[in-house]
Amino acid sequence: MTTTDISLETSLREFQVETQELIDAELDRLIPSELTPPATVHSAIRWSVFAGGKRFRPMLLCAVGECFGSPSAALLPAACAVEMIHAYSLIHDDLPSMDDDDLRRGRATCHIRFGEAAAILAGDALQALAFKTVAEDENLSTEQRTRLVREIAIASGTPSGMVAGQALDLDAESRAVGGDELEQIHRLKTGALIGAAARCGAIIANATNAQLSVVSDYAAHLGLLFQITDDLLDVTASAEALGKTPGKDMRAAKATYVNIHGLDGARQLGEQVHARALATLEQLDQRTERLHAIADYILNRTT
Amino acid sequence: MTTTDISLETSLREFQVETQELIDAELDRLIPSELTPPATVHSAIRWSVFAGGKRFRPMLLCAVGECFGSPSAALLPAACAVEMIHAYSLIHDDLPSMDDDDLRRGRATCHIRFGEAAAILAGDALQALAFKTVAEDENLSTEQRTRLVREIAIASGTPSGMVAGQALDLDAESRAVGGDELEQIHRLKTGALIGAAARCGAIIANATNAQLSVVSDYAAHLGLLFQITDDLLDVTASAEALGKTPGKDMRAAKATYVNIHGLDGARQLGEQVHARALATLEQLDQRTERLHAIADYILNRTT
Repeated sequence: MTTTDISLETSLREFQVETQELIDAELDRLIPSELTPPATVHSAIRWSVFAGGKRFRPMLLCAVGECFGSPSAALLPAACAVEMIHAYSLIHDDLPSMDDDDLRRGRATCHIRFGEAAAILAGDALQALAFKTVAEDENLSTEQRTRLVREIAIASGTPSGMVAGQALDLDAESRAVGGDELEQIHRLKTGALIGAAARCGAIIANATNAQLSVVSDYAAHLGLLFQITDDLLDVTASAEALGKTPGKDMRAAKATYVNIHGLDGARQLGEQVHARALATLEQLDQRTERLHAIADYILNRTT
Repeated sequence: MTTTDISLETSLREFQVETQELIDAELDRLIPSELTPPATVHSAIRWSVFAGGKRFRPMLLCAVGECFGSPSAALLPAACAVEMIHAYSLIHDDLPSMDDDDLRRGRATCHIRFGEAAAILAGDALQALAFKTVAEDENLSTEQRTRLVREIAIASGTPSGMVAGQALDLDAESRAVGGDELEQIHRLKTGALIGAAARCGAIIANATNAQLSVVSDYAAHLGLLFQITDDLLDVTASAEALGKTPGKDMRAAKATYVNIHGLDGARQLGEQVHARALATLEQLDQRTERLHAIADYILNRTT
């Protein structure tokens, strides 16, 4: 299924490893230590943020920013802010009153390890820290910082962001959901923040509005592809590779692309969406191999 | 105990009523309607935001901003942002795993009315909306918006803000707490956001750093006074006036100013802190009657 040649594949892997190291070091710098009071909340934050996440959103932000000529140092704080929002959403989504998950990335979820109160507060603190990080980023103009805060806030909240998606997803658990509604849920729950990550990279690199619009379209396809492969992996991957109980979404009769389109149908949809993402990139004059490779990576991911 | 004459008292009441109306109208404009999906989350947000809150923080922000010459229209969005943070913190603090409160301002708390998941999401969405509101406020320069986001984020999160205070407060429930530790808890839990409200007003009015420093000191005294009178009201006020079960903190042997200093001791401490707030204001050349009256109002409040 791979559509990239070896050298680009290798290059993306190197980029991933390099970005992941830079992001982890920056997150470590930005997040208070486990010894800083309130120690339980900071331990809970670090437990969840440094749990072996793939840093996909920061990588996307950096790849888009570098595509438009930004140095990577200018991209890192905003990339960390987006990852903080993602991490907070996982902590809150795992809570007993939400998805009630005990296991995430192969270990206890935040509330299992630290208790519900600490988990709620860890998520709340991470959201505030994300906005503080962007507001304090002296690499960027105040105009850029303001735009980034706005992008991330809209993508995180309601009615057009992640919280709206999580609410609609919870609401959909108890009834039958069609393909259009499923796409809307995931466009909000997963797609909005992936879109914000890509757009933030472009904003930091001072991309034009026309370029920003192409980046938004590319990221929208990527977000959808991400969710389709997520649903596929839930059915096909082993518990060990996934770090959580596979098949959980299937068993719960939850709305997923596999439940609605079948295994082959979901795979075909993934190929189509992947092709659309690549076609979108052709509108850019920049070198887009890395963004191309990211779409390939999402299509072919095994974890 | 009143230290203001009648005319200033009247004037503050008028200012309160006027500010409350402006703030409520602006919040109504900024918060998605109950019909906008996800309807449950928006209903939960509106249930909690429009529950008859006194809008103390917005009023303080507006009073400080007007003291330094800002028109009130420029102050309203930031004042609403601070109120959104306050409202989200009440929703999350009331949750079963936190303070486990069923009643707030005389009616069911958010999670009792809408369920825990909706309450958690309502709080999360309100936090994002607060930062979006500031970032989108075109009355202000991007420099001002960036400073406001930073102020509000620091005052909301950890290690120096509201979430840190709530975490330390939960931690303190199970053991004896001294006066210094109690003050530190409330400085974070209540004082930080009150301080941010006052500072945001000064920043919008382009106050100098020296003026900002005086405002911070004044607000620090005010925050402490607010908590002392809160603890006093918990013991002395009726359930009807308070809108919650009085004496709850007393019975729980929770650290309060009344538990540590006794009723008379807490009253004396309140008078001292009030005097310090007024003394601080003497460093300003501006007309500070309204800030003076706000300190009086906090000292003498009955709800």
